[in-house]
Order: sequence, then structure tokens, then C-alpha cells
Amino acid sequence: MTVRERIHEIIFESDTKLGKWFDIALIVSILASVLVVILSTMEWAGLPQWRGRFLAVEWVFTGLFTIEYIARLWSVKRPLKYAFSFFGIIDLLAILPSFIGLFIYHGETLLVIRTLRLIRVFRVLKLARYLSEATALKRAFILSRHKIVVFLTMVMIVVVIAGALMHVVEGLDENGNPTEFHSMPSAMYWAVITMTTVGYGDITPGTAFGKFLTAALVLIGYSMIIVPTGILSAEIAQQRRPVAGKSCSNCLYEGHDADAIHCKKCGQRL
Amino acid sequence: MTVRERIHEIIFESDTKLGKWFDIALIVSILASVLVVILSTMEWAGLPQWRGRFLAVEWVFTGLFTIEYIARLWSVKRPLKYAFSFFGIIDLLAILPSFIGLFIYHGETLLVIRTLRLIRVFRVLKLARYLSEATALKRAFILSRHKIVVFLTMVMIVVVIAGALMHVVEGLDENGNPTEFHSMPSAMYWAVITMTTVGYGDITPGTAFGKFLTAALVLIGYSMIIVPTGILSAEIAQQRRPVAGKSCSNCLYEGHDADAIHCKKCGQRL
Amino acid sequence: MTVRERIHEIIFESDTKLGKWFDIALIVSILASVLVVILSTMEWAGLPQWRGRFLAVEWVFTGLFTIEYIARLWSVKRPLKYAFSFFGIIDLLAILPSFIGLFIYHGETLLVIRTLRLIRVFRVLKLARYLSEATALKRAFILSRHKIVVFLTMVMIVVVIAGALMHVVEGLDENGNPTEFHSMPSAMYWAVITMTTVGYGDITPGTAFGKFLTAALVLIGYSMIIVPTGILSAEIAQQRRPVAGKSCSNCLYEGHDADAIHCKKCGQRL
Amino acid sequence: MTVRERIHEIIFESDTKLGKWFDIALIVSILASVLVVILSTMEWAGLPQWRGRFLAVEWVFTGLFTIEYIARLWSVKRPLKYAFSFFGIIDLLAILPSFIGLFIYHGETLLVIRTLRLIRVFRVLKLARYLSEATALKRAFILSRHKIVVFLTMVMIVVVIAGALMHVVEGLDENGNPTEFHSMPSAMYWAVITMTTVGYGDITPGTAFGKFLTAALVLIGYSMIIVPTGILSAEIAQQRRPVAGKSCSNCLYEGHDADAIHCKKCGQRL
Repeated sequence: MTVRERIHEIIFESDTKLGKWFDIALIVSILASVLVVILSTMEWAGLPQWRGRFLAVEWVFTGLFTIEYIARLWSVKRPLKYAFSFFGIIDLLAILPSFIGLFIYHGETLLVIRTLRLIRVFRVLKLARYLSEATALKRAFILSRHKIVVFLTMVMIVVVIAGALMHVVEGLDENGNPTEFHSMPSAMYWAVITMTTVGYGDITPGTAFGKFLTAALVLIGYSMIIVPTGILSAEIAQQRRPVAGKSCSNCLYEGHDADAIHCKKCGQRL
Repeated sequence: MTVRERIHEIIFESDTKLGKWFDIALIVSILASVLVVILSTMEWAGLPQWRGRFLAVEWVFTGLFTIEYIARLWSVKRPLKYAFSFFGIIDLLAILPSFIGLFIYHGETLLVIRTLRLIRVFRVLKLARYLSEATALKRAFILSRHKIVVFLTMVMIVVVIAGALMHVVEGLDENGNPTEFHSMPSAMYWAVITMTTVGYGDITPGTAFGKFLTAALVLIGYSMIIVPTGILSAEIAQQRRPVAGKSCSNCLYEGHDADAIHCKKCGQRL
Repeated sequence: MTVRERIHEIIFESDTKLGKWFDIALIVSILASVLVVILSTMEWAGLPQWRGRFLAVEWVFTGLFTIEYIARLWSVKRPLKYAFSFFGIIDLLAILPSFIGLFIYHGETLLVIRTLRLIRVFRVLKLARYLSEATALKRAFILSRHKIVVFLTMVMIVVVIAGALMHVVEGLDENGNPTEFHSMPSAMYWAVITMTTVGYGDITPGTAFGKFLTAALVLIGYSMIIVPTGILSAEIAQQRRPVAGKSCSNCLYEGHDADAIHCKKCGQRL
Repeated sequence: MTVRERIHEIIFESDTKLGKWFDIALIVSILASVLVVILSTMEWAGLPQWRGRFLAVEWVFTGLFTIEYIARLWSVKRPLKYAFSFFGIIDLLAILPSFIGLFIYHGETLLVIRTLRLIRVFRVLKLARYLSEATALKRAFILSRHKIVVFLTMVMIVVVIAGALMHVVEGLDENGNPTEFHSMPSAMYWAVITMTTVGYGDITPGTAFGKFLTAALVLIGYSMIIVPTGILSAEIAQQRRPVAGKSCSNCLYEGHDADAIHCKKCGQRL
């Protein structure tokens, strides 16, 4: 086994002892580096005596992850395929923000994108089937993509029209000065915040008619969001029920439960 | 083929090359005109040098859509039927606000109703079955209209009574001055905003008893909205399940359950 | 037919022409009287010239409904049974607040309880089956009452404990002065408003630890409310599916759909 | 029967008359002591003349519950097993905070943890099957724990990344001063409050781009929470359906679907 094969085994597999330790060290590093990024944004961390230390620790982690990324590229058989795979892109994104932070203010905070690397946790902890749950969800979403497109288009249309109505009704206050509803983007932001029932309260209707309109829009917009979401959920739950849809060799019935031993229609052993 | 037939083909069909280009140009125009309306409401757009330009662009789009509307009316065999159809009314509404804007302050913002024309996108992009999704949703709502009527009546009754209770309890503050709850419309607006869990916070209870009442009303009102909505969603999801069902070879009925052995209409073995 | 029988027919039945007109007049009166109560709480209605007029109109409606209530009591065969029936109590509640208003400030606003009388609309408009929807919902709730009791007990326990935690953590601000969380009832009100995702924002955590605790409580409390509610909804929807659960005379299968003509298991005509 | 056996019967069983009275007294004591704790935090209770009285009553209840706890430990056959059981730990937690309150400010407020003892109510009131409801829910959650782990990991990742995005976009206001989004923990608190649609409004975006980002995050985060929750609810409801199912006469398996003809475990015709 060459050095390159050995490094590949340590980095990409978790069956060997060294490979397991590498994975655990990796997860701890990811969590630690995300924690450092979070702490570095707190008020006391801006003081001169802390700023330097945090910057140093961040660059240490960036250095480690850069070495790891290069090792992955070098040890894998087809580097390009890895580089453009889901995990390959995340591994790159996990080191890029440090360099971006040299140019954009606090751009290094995007280092928290490293949390995405935690998806590896599932693989390491032998919880691969947790990932299959995520895959099942993804497939269910793909099956429902038509409904989601229609749904989002409807939501967008309602948001634009609701914003326009409030712009016309509450755009100017009683003294003729523009309100928060005067700008359409602001009014559309209000419509999204209201229809999703977040309701910050930073923009609220002031006139009686505006309040009436808001109450009506809330009821319409709310049901426009909650009912389709509920339908989608119920349908996804139904679609996923007969997971391992084996069919009966006797009566060809296909809706067997995952724990069935005999066909529930004709009694044939499956 | 006369000129009129040719124009009809271009405007209403999307099978020919010209028809396809017309549709794409139409969608781009709609999106562009909506974007112009949104931008024209922003602060900087109110400056003299911008105001005129936006007004000009708006009228150009209104002109184009007016010409298109007249062309549709002229080229179609039964103009009245088109004029009173769903798309016909939307096409008219898409040009009217410009003229309304001459009389009512910022009435031209209602031009964003043009976004409704985007529903045409579904047809153009050969995504007709997306529309059938919308139709299925519509039919499901019609089937559930009884429940929705009972539900809305109940919500209205609870909103009125909740508003009245808060009016009595919190109508006057400790100094005897009227609060936000003093006016019943305002108290009912509060009840809607609270029961739908939007919770702006622009109107909140001030006294201990008012807070207790609010907590109780939230729990009652919340379950009054969330549970029926959930039931409705689950039922719609169930009603729509046998979409792509097998059809009976005898009576051609198609709505069989996945577990049916015999046609439930004629008894034919499936 | 005696006068008493005739009045009974007009008031309680809606088959005769007079009975129908009476019902329509009743509904219009109810809506009008509720509207008057709502309008009478608005600012301009407090002016001397309006106050008297509104009071007069309110007493006219109270007079009419009192006469109607007495007529109902007099014409019905078993007055006590009516007086203690659902509609009988509502009919009484619809006139009482006027008299309460003589003693308690703005107590007459409770007249809006008259809206409950609108439930009669269902009967009048031959929409009796809408009422059966409400009955089905009621029965479903009764079937699920065990779950609801367990659920509410759990919610109460979480509300009390969440309030106590925030009382300990955020009860005093940095200067040692009591905050909104210092009073347990106030902290419990906060917990309800937060867990139901209403989120007014009138009481919010100020310290970093308080914010962390709030975020954790929101996630716990939210799932404690949304998941059981969803389960309840799905179960009610399932329980109500086989509405007219006739059983097959041949194979005794009972899960037939409402529109089934033949048993879907054995093909027997139902 | 020794004294110890007799006390065991009174405290742990509720079949005898004395045992029933003990249970009722216990529940009343728990409710009363929680009420006292709640009242003691109100403003007027801080006055010198009240403070002492409340403290005295609290210590009386703590004394009673301490005696009861010792009696339970003494009368039970295996004290250690009881001490580490669910109810044993709660019984201990119900008296500890009084002693903690001697050292930590208002630590005695944690006495409200006594409300957890109310779970005993179910047993006392012969509502044991209410508890089985809670058990069924617990088991359903255990069955779905994989989905919940994936779900919470996803939520955490989205919260961290959403917070980081807002930190970069809105971390500094136009004058270069740090905003509420400058601290990552604060920005993550905002992300949780927003995505769960609580929306206090204590931290809101100020810039146009921040508002756009918020609207997008709300829609993404909202669907990330509401859809999986809905799926989970629907699945739990389905898993729990065959509760009172018929049992197979051959293998005694009880989890048959309502539409099963043969036992899915052994093939026996049902």
C-alpha cells in the first residue's frame, strides 16, 4: 500500500482505527472552529488583546482545513470528480471565507459555512441511514416540485398585490409624509413577514382601513400558506409509507408494510 | 389564412415559432413592467429627474398592453366571451390602473396586478399540468366549502367576542383614558392579529387580567385555527390521493383506492 | 290553530312564508345590532350628539329581542326545556348585557355575544348539514378529549416551568431592578405568547443567557404545540373518513367510501 | 400488616379510603404550593409584611413534602430503585429548590417544578389510560428519533448560516456602529425567533438588502420547519392507527391494518 493509498484510507474511510480517529478529530475541529467564529463576533472579542488571538486561531483552523483539502485532492483517484462533488464543494467553501475576509468586512464570519461539514457526522457515527432519511425527504420534495412551483408563484403574486394595496392605502400618513409602506420593496417585505405570521411589528398599519385590510390579508395569506403546506406534508407522509414496496408473488398486491411477512390480501408468504 | 386568423394564432397559441416568441416577449414585458412599478415607489425614484422617466416607461408598457388587449378582442371569434373570461378580465385589469392613477394618488401602483398575467407562464412553458395542480386544489376547496364556511363563521364570532371582552377589560387605562382596545374595530384587528399568531405587538394588554385573558384567548383561538386547518389539509390530501389510479375495465371509473380489489362502482374485479 | 301555535310556527319553523320572513328579519336585526355595538365604541361615537342616538338604537334592539325571547318562552310547549337549551341560553345572553351595561362600564359591549345567534343562519338558509359539520367536529373533539387533557396539562407544566426559569434568569436587570419577568404571572404570559409563536415583543429577554434560553424554549415549546396539534388533526381527519360506514353483507368489510356501490374487497353490491 | 406496610399502602396505592384521601390532599398541596410560589413573585408580595408570610408558607410546604419524601424512601421495599425512578427524581426536585433559594437569588421559584408532580393526577383520578396516551406519544417520538436528529441538525445549520449572513450584511449600521446583528449569538437568536415565526421584533433588519434577505430566509426557514413537522405529525398519526386492532387467532399479532384480510405475520386468514 503506497503512502497515497494509506492517506486516502485514513481520510475517506472510517473502518480503520486511524481513520476513525481522523474523523473524530475532524468533527471536533469543525465544531471548535465554528465556535471560535461565533465567539469572535461578541463585543468583548473586539478588544485589542482578544482580536489578535481569535484571528490567529482562525488562521490555524483555515491552515489545517487547507492541508486536509489538498490531501483529499491528492489522494483521491479522480480529483476533479471530488472537487465538484457535494462534499468537495463544501470542503472548499469551508476555507475560502478566510481569504475573502481579507477584503470584505467580517467576511470571515462566513466560515460558519463549515457547519455544513457536520453532515459528515452522520457517516462517521455509522448513522448512514439518517442520511437516507434526508434523501427520502429530498426525493419527496422532488416529487412535489410542481406543487411547490405553483405554490411559490401564488405566494409571490399575493405578496406583490398585498404590498401594492397597502402602498396605495397607507403609503402616505395624514400629513402627507411617506410611511414605511411607501416603498414597494418595504411593503412586500411587510407582506411576507405578515403572511408567514412572523409579525415583527416594525411595520404596522396605522389607519382603520389599513387595519381592516391587514386583517383580511392575514386570513387570506395565512390560509394560502398553511393549507398547501399541510396538504404537502400529508401527501409526502402518504407517499413515503410503503417504503420497500415489494409485491406479492401470488396476488401482486403492492402496499405491504415494511414489517409484513405474509401478503395481507391473500396470505401468500412474501 | 387571413391577417386576423394569423394574429389570433400568434397571440393565443404557442405552437408556431412566432407564437412562442410572442409569449416570451409578453412574459418579459410583464416582469419588466412590474419591476418598473416596484422601483418607481422607492425614495430615490421620487426625485424630479427620475419621476418623469418612470412615468414614461409605465405609459409605454400600458400602451403596449392596451394594443395587445385590443388585438385579442379583435382577433378572437367571440370577443365578449373572452372579455368576461378569467384571463380577459386580468388582461383588462393590467391596463386600467394607469388610467386610475390619473385620478387617485399612486393608483398606478395597482399595475402590479399585472403579475396575475404571469399565470400564463404555466401555459407558455408547457407546464399545463402545473395548472391542473391549481385546478385540483381549487376543486378540493370547493368540495370543502361547507367546512370553510362553518370555520370562517366560527372565527368571525370568536373575533367579535374576543374583541368585546378586551374592550370591556382593557378599554380604559388606569387614568380613565381610552386605550387601543377602546374602539371595537381596533380590538377586533388585535384579535385577528393575535389568533393567527402574527402578533405585531402594536396593541398589547397592559393589565394582569388582560394578560391572563389574552393567554387564554391565544390558546383557544390558536387551536380554533390550527386544528381545523390541519383537518382540512389532511382531508384534501386524502381526497386527492387516487389521482393516477387504475381504471375499471368494465365501467372505466378511475378513482379506485390503491388497495381495492373490485371496482367500487360496478363490482368488476380489477 | 290557536294564536300561540301560529306564533310558534312563525318563530320556530321556517317552512311557511311568514316564518321565512321572520328568520330573515331576525338575521338582519342581529347583524345590524352587532354593527351598532361595534360602531358605538369608535372615537367619534363618544361625542355627545352620537352617544344618545346609539344608546337609543341599542335599547330598541334589546327591546325587540326581549319581546322575541318572551314570545319564544310563551309559545313553546316546554318553556323550561327551551330556556336551558343551547339556543335558549344564547337568546337570553343576547339581551342581558344591555342591563349589565347599566352597572358596569361599557358592559353593553358584550351585546356582541348576539353574533352567536348567527348560528341560526345555518338553519334558516337550509344549510343544516353545515351544522352537522360542526357536530362532526364536536364529536371528533370529544373522542380526542383524553389527548387534549394530557396535552393541555403538559402545556401548562411547560408554561409554568419556562416562566420560572426566565424569572430566575432575567428577573432582575443589571441594576438590580425587577424586569417584566420578575412577576411569575407576567413570565407565564410571556411563555404562552412565545410558545404559540404569537411573539408580541412587549416582553423579551435582555441578557445573552436569557436569549439562549428563549431560543431553546421556543424550539421545545413550539414542537410541543405544533406536533400534537398536527397528530390530532391527522387523527380526526382519519376518524371522519368512513362517514357512513356500512358493512358489506358478504365479506363484512366496513371501510367503504361514501360513494361506493360495490364492496371493494369482494365485489358484493352494497 | 406492619406500620411500614400500612404507610406504603396509603402513600403508594389509591385503592383504600385513606390512600385516596392522601392522594387528594397531595394534589391540593401541590397546586396550593405552586400557587404560593407564583403569588410570591408579584410586586405587592415583595412588601415587608407579605414577604415573611410567603416564606413561612413555602417552608411549611417544603417541610411537608420532605416528610413525604422520607416516608416514601422508608416504606418502599427498594429505596434506591424509587430514588432513581422518574417519580422519585421529581419528588426530590420538588423540595430541593427551597434549599437552593438560600444561596441563589429567587432560586426558590424553581419550586414550580412541583407542577411536574401533577402527573400523578392521572393515576389518582383513575385516568391511567391518559398516561398511556403520553406513553404512546413518547414511543412515537422514539420511533421518529432519526428524523428528529436529522431535522434538528438541519435547523441548527440553517440558524448558524442565516445568523452569519445577517452578521455580514447588517453587522454595522450606516455610521459604522455595531448593530444587534454584530454579535453572532444575538444574530442566531434572531434566526431562531424568526424561523419559528415568533417574531418578537426586538431585532429587525434595517437595510433594504437585509429586508430582502430576511424575507427569503423566512420563506426557506419557515418551510424547513413547518413541512417536516407536518410530515412527522402525519406519520405518527399513521403509526398509531391500528391501536385497537383485531388480533390474529393463530399468532396473536395485533397491529393489523383495518383493511387486512390475512395476518401479515403468519398468513392466517383473519
